[in-house]
Amino acid sequence: MTDAPIFKRLALIGTGLIGGSIARAARAQSAAGSIVATARSAATRQRVRELGFADEVAETNVDAVKGADLVIVCVPVGACGAVAEEIGPHLKKGAIVSDVGSVKGSVLKEMAPHLPAGVHFIPAHPVAGTENSGPDSGFAELFVNRWCILTPPDGADPTAVDKLGAFWSAIGANVQVMTAEHHDLVLAITSHLPHLIAYTIVGTAEDLSEVTESEVLKFSAGGFRDFTRIAASDPTMWRDVFLNNKDAVLEMLGTFNEDLSKLTRAIRRGDGEALFDHFTRTRAIRRGIVQIGQDSAAPDFGRMQPGLPHTEIPRPYASEGD
Amino acid sequence: MTDAPIFKRLALIGTGLIGGSIARAARAQSAAGSIVATARSAATRQRVRELGFADEVAETNVDAVKGADLVIVCVPVGACGAVAEEIGPHLKKGAIVSDVGSVKGSVLKEMAPHLPAGVHFIPAHPVAGTENSGPDSGFAELFVNRWCILTPPDGADPTAVDKLGAFWSAIGANVQVMTAEHHDLVLAITSHLPHLIAYTIVGTAEDLSEVTESEVLKFSAGGFRDFTRIAASDPTMWRDVFLNNKDAVLEMLGTFNEDLSKLTRAIRRGDGEALFDHFTRTRAIRRGIVQIGQDSAAPDFGRMQPGLPHTEIPRPYASEGD
Repeated sequence: MTDAPIFKRLALIGTGLIGGSIARAARAQSAAGSIVATARSAATRQRVRELGFADEVAETNVDAVKGADLVIVCVPVGACGAVAEEIGPHLKKGAIVSDVGSVKGSVLKEMAPHLPAGVHFIPAHPVAGTENSGPDSGFAELFVNRWCILTPPDGADPTAVDKLGAFWSAIGANVQVMTAEHHDLVLAITSHLPHLIAYTIVGTAEDLSEVTESEVLKFSAGGFRDFTRIAASDPTMWRDVFLNNKDAVLEMLGTFNEDLSKLTRAIRRGDGEALFDHFTRTRAIRRGIVQIGQDSAAPDFGRMQPGLPHTEIPRPYASEGD
Repeated sequence: MTDAPIFKRLALIGTGLIGGSIARAARAQSAAGSIVATARSAATRQRVRELGFADEVAETNVDAVKGADLVIVCVPVGACGAVAEEIGPHLKKGAIVSDVGSVKGSVLKEMAPHLPAGVHFIPAHPVAGTENSGPDSGFAELFVNRWCILTPPDGADPTAVDKLGAFWSAIGANVQVMTAEHHDLVLAITSHLPHLIAYTIVGTAEDLSEVTESEVLKFSAGGFRDFTRIAASDPTMWRDVFLNNKDAVLEMLGTFNEDLSKLTRAIRRGDGEALFDHFTRTRAIRRGIVQIGQDSAAPDFGRMQPGLPHTEIPRPYASEGD
């Protein structure tokens, strides 16, 4: 890294988990000379001022982008088009405009028409996150060893693509370039379908009449709780993802349903061999994910606390026994 | 807790994640005077000797149960009946026989006929685990603040039930008593269906032709990786679970499929309101699970490592940029 920051002035529109993390990371890595941030609500802007992760908090999107070399739109996918329309006429010539949306085809389609010639539009998607949202939820290390996918449109300036890649790299991410179409297919299986399934099963559990909600919570350590984390993600963001990546999600859902039918049939017929074979095959994927550092190798995601002192073991039942 | 251990002699048949954890926990909490363990294979028995978590390693199930006050069968659900048949004639009068299986109706049906009068049979299920298996995978804190469900058959001796509850309580678990039928329904939604769904989607991802396995691994942080943990669980154990809790699993699966169809229809029709409403509702369940201590409150299950020094941020792409 040279002494000069990669971008002199970074503007962030939206200061939730992703926008707030970019700001914190860019400052920690000196990847931007100055950081201006804005948010839709006055309350959020006030909170960003209190948190102090931006050098400047602008009142409007238009104010925020003035003079910025890199503008990153960090709002739900469905809101990107309107933001582009608003900021388009006020962008600095030669600026790079990007986003962080989980769907790239629709973002490209919605934003591109509003951006003037002489501005480089390079959509991006950092594949990183937690179940939390809002300006307090971000942190500088969110992108470390995670992938950021860039989907430059045909004819994008390679220097601008490299420069945006260098920014993401500076704040810890691995960078990969692919088309928007391929991105949307890949993310449909690695992110969108898992969220849809998780949202579904958590809703199913809530609606059961034979099992109480208290039982669902108490006995969630049997596997259910792993699904609840991603089913606690931001509802607006995820509504927009499904509305905007409909085709790829429905395609993956079709394949998933076929596979689920196969396993259901094996259960119904008592075909233990088919079940065993399938369950053996899926272990390898987990090993692969851990090997490339995309998940914790610690059992149970490392969320247990071995080494707990004996005295902390609660004994609510023993007093009733002998 | 009194100075005397709850059971003088504990026999563990099976020394995988659960059996091995019971041994380690019982020793740490002095809940058993002595611990004898056995395993089916000579290699595992040898490994248990090396690990040293039992006072004695018996060569056979019959040898293990001789003189034991508490016998816990820690083998896959499908193997419980055969073990009961084998040990039945050799059990000490007044001994308590239990298990740790994830299905209780079938265990009750398979084991009970082989156990002699004068022995107390009280099936149990500690709702705790990790994706790892084998004698090395256990640890003393596995059951701390997890629930252990006891499903005593009609007419079981209340003193024996209390004593077994006191044992589980001593090694850290909360204890709840319910019928085997209700247990199998509750676990179908909190554990069995989540595992089936996770096994399915991981298989779906592996079989896709448009997305490479390397892409699935790299971009798994978008949500997919949360599913891979439980899809890496022991295949034999899970085959047996689905074969033995068929009816309840198929019932839950039916409800899940209906719910998934509803959300699919909302996506197809572009019904953002229905999606938003559903996604908002499911957040509450997550909060409930965290509140009662059944999952980590840390974002991302706490598997991130905030506070990573800046120097550790990898910069594989920056060198190619400016």
